[in-house]
Amino acid sequence: MEEAIAMNGGDGPNSYTQNSKFQEQGSDRAKALLSNSIQEFLDIQESLQVFSIADLGCSVGPNTFSCVQTITKAVRLKYKAHSPKLEVPEFHVFFNDNVTNDFNTLFKALPVDRHYMAAGVPGSFYGRLFPKASMNFIHSSYSLHWLTKVPEEVLEEASPACNKGRITYVLSSCEVVKAFTSQFLSDMEAFFSARSLEMERCGLMALLIPCRPEGTLPSDSIFCQFFECLSGALKDLVKEGLVTKALVDSFNLPIYIPDASELKKAITSNKHLELLKMEEVYFPPMLTSPEEVLACSRHVRAAMEGILCNHFGSQIMDQLFEKYSEKLEEFSKMPHFIRVKNLENLFVLVKRNSLA
Amino acid sequence: MEEAIAMNGGDGPNSYTQNSKFQEQGSDRAKALLSNSIQEFLDIQESLQVFSIADLGCSVGPNTFSCVQTITKAVRLKYKAHSPKLEVPEFHVFFNDNVTNDFNTLFKALPVDRHYMAAGVPGSFYGRLFPKASMNFIHSSYSLHWLTKVPEEVLEEASPACNKGRITYVLSSCEVVKAFTSQFLSDMEAFFSARSLEMERCGLMALLIPCRPEGTLPSDSIFCQFFECLSGALKDLVKEGLVTKALVDSFNLPIYIPDASELKKAITSNKHLELLKMEEVYFPPMLTSPEEVLACSRHVRAAMEGILCNHFGSQIMDQLFEKYSEKLEEFSKMPHFIRVKNLENLFVLVKRNSLA
Repeated sequence: MEEAIAMNGGDGPNSYTQNSKFQEQGSDRAKALLSNSIQEFLDIQESLQVFSIADLGCSVGPNTFSCVQTITKAVRLKYKAHSPKLEVPEFHVFFNDNVTNDFNTLFKALPVDRHYMAAGVPGSFYGRLFPKASMNFIHSSYSLHWLTKVPEEVLEEASPACNKGRITYVLSSCEVVKAFTSQFLSDMEAFFSARSLEMERCGLMALLIPCRPEGTLPSDSIFCQFFECLSGALKDLVKEGLVTKALVDSFNLPIYIPDASELKKAITSNKHLELLKMEEVYFPPMLTSPEEVLACSRHVRAAMEGILCNHFGSQIMDQLFEKYSEKLEEFSKMPHFIRVKNLENLFVLVKRNSLA
Repeated sequence: MEEAIAMNGGDGPNSYTQNSKFQEQGSDRAKALLSNSIQEFLDIQESLQVFSIADLGCSVGPNTFSCVQTITKAVRLKYKAHSPKLEVPEFHVFFNDNVTNDFNTLFKALPVDRHYMAAGVPGSFYGRLFPKASMNFIHSSYSLHWLTKVPEEVLEEASPACNKGRITYVLSSCEVVKAFTSQFLSDMEAFFSARSLEMERCGLMALLIPCRPEGTLPSDSIFCQFFECLSGALKDLVKEGLVTKALVDSFNLPIYIPDASELKKAITSNKHLELLKMEEVYFPPMLTSPEEVLACSRHVRAAMEGILCNHFGSQIMDQLFEKYSEKLEEFSKMPHFIRVKNLENLFVLVKRNSLA
């Protein structure tokens, strides 16, 4: 679970942070899926000189390097299995994240023993990042749940979708949920449209994204409820006079947790893309001890501090996350959280078809 | 002239700083050469989908953006002149500099109205940066005079090439000059070897590099004498007890100013490269008023502060550059400087031949 919420907040939609022990559990399964997908579905082009790979929402490492290693290793194996004498193409790896990402840190952390040429690509993956038909493999892990923006109506006082007093849609009215769902679908359309242009014919794309179980409502997302605990913490700070109510009312997190059918719809509505695989990956929700609660709070802080600082200022962060740990602990004892066995994520494999 | 010495010091070989009014004078001529070279020598490939451009030693902008604009504009014109109906390929631009360059600043400064996909590439251009045969046009301006390192023997007490008390080879013994020349030639071999692998068949490379007039000795370089004025300033600080003599003795600038024949030799000894053009570009040496001396000192500070701070610590920089301005003023009144009409730079155009 912590992997899902360990996003590099403040940087907007593309980022997530690294190095969580919980990530290891889930990422082993995700890496196996990634590797197996390449073995099963990658088309070998014997004349290919350069195999281009992009990781979208790469943050500053080391997870991105580990994913890239998994991909290059699997591609190399697939080439060797196809024909032992076939020369494996050179790898050109593009690390993408928002322009506010710390690329300096990323570049300094690049593995010295890497067997690929590396480049950093600043910009939102909801727009174009690469030339047409230039990418052989695109990967993105835990980034697609960041929206391009908070839907405007959510912040409008006069709108029926106004979401005053909350920072996610998860406990809000249908109108609020609808506004977030609609933003997600529109962002996904832009994402898959840009990628379908950039993927080489028969290129592959693998995505890992936190999801809610099929058939549940958007408001049932336990992931979002984790974030919503921040609302409670912010309200306490309002009571203590540390933050104004107006400042809290004007803040929402640009996050949406879809279910499989919403994601499937977004992919299949793009005529250039073919959905090859959609598989659940589970993470245990780790909030069973005070240590786990604290660790979770720290991850959320790492993930969200940037975006929260931008809006509320850095001076309240210590108090905010102290309160947040309390709210998380309360939340972990609530019946609807106790019922949760596992948190769901989706591994999705998409192929660019050969339509022009 | 100031353009030549306005390098982004401390970052090693790849950097130079921006925004000098002197740059404008020289860069207009350099840009015209760049643009005309493309018109004259670029081979149009009708089926090309992506036209890849690299700028090596890009620093943080804005000069790199302006060069890239010149290149893309000229390529577009050439395509349109070739056949008005021909679709111009998409441009993929790779901004390269050392890993210590501030890519975050570069990325934030990227022109919003650019008509190309941008990527940052960290690493020394004396090694491989791009996949084989992937670059259609490579550009580098005022970066190739930075060596990969100070030749080791120059810092060895027992060596005949020991360069105690100086920071460049310019007023030193033959042995010191030889060590620097040899380092330059070896670095150039590595540079052209890497580029010849990376350039697409018939790809072009344009270089602008500070040079000394043909037939002069390496020790005649006025550029280097500018830098050598820093030695005098450092010696004054030793006298004042602000720096130890040992610290000064253990420092040299990794810079070499070649002449046309040295550069020519380095290019033509690579069997994959063809030298198409080598043309002098002159900059007036601007040290005729106290304002110009101060401006020059500031440029050298911007260029060298990083590398000097690394070695001497930041606390002496103000005093050092106060002394440096004095030394520059003295230097500007010396007969061998007064004789200098213009400072020489070379514009070089190289083509990748079609040998495998």
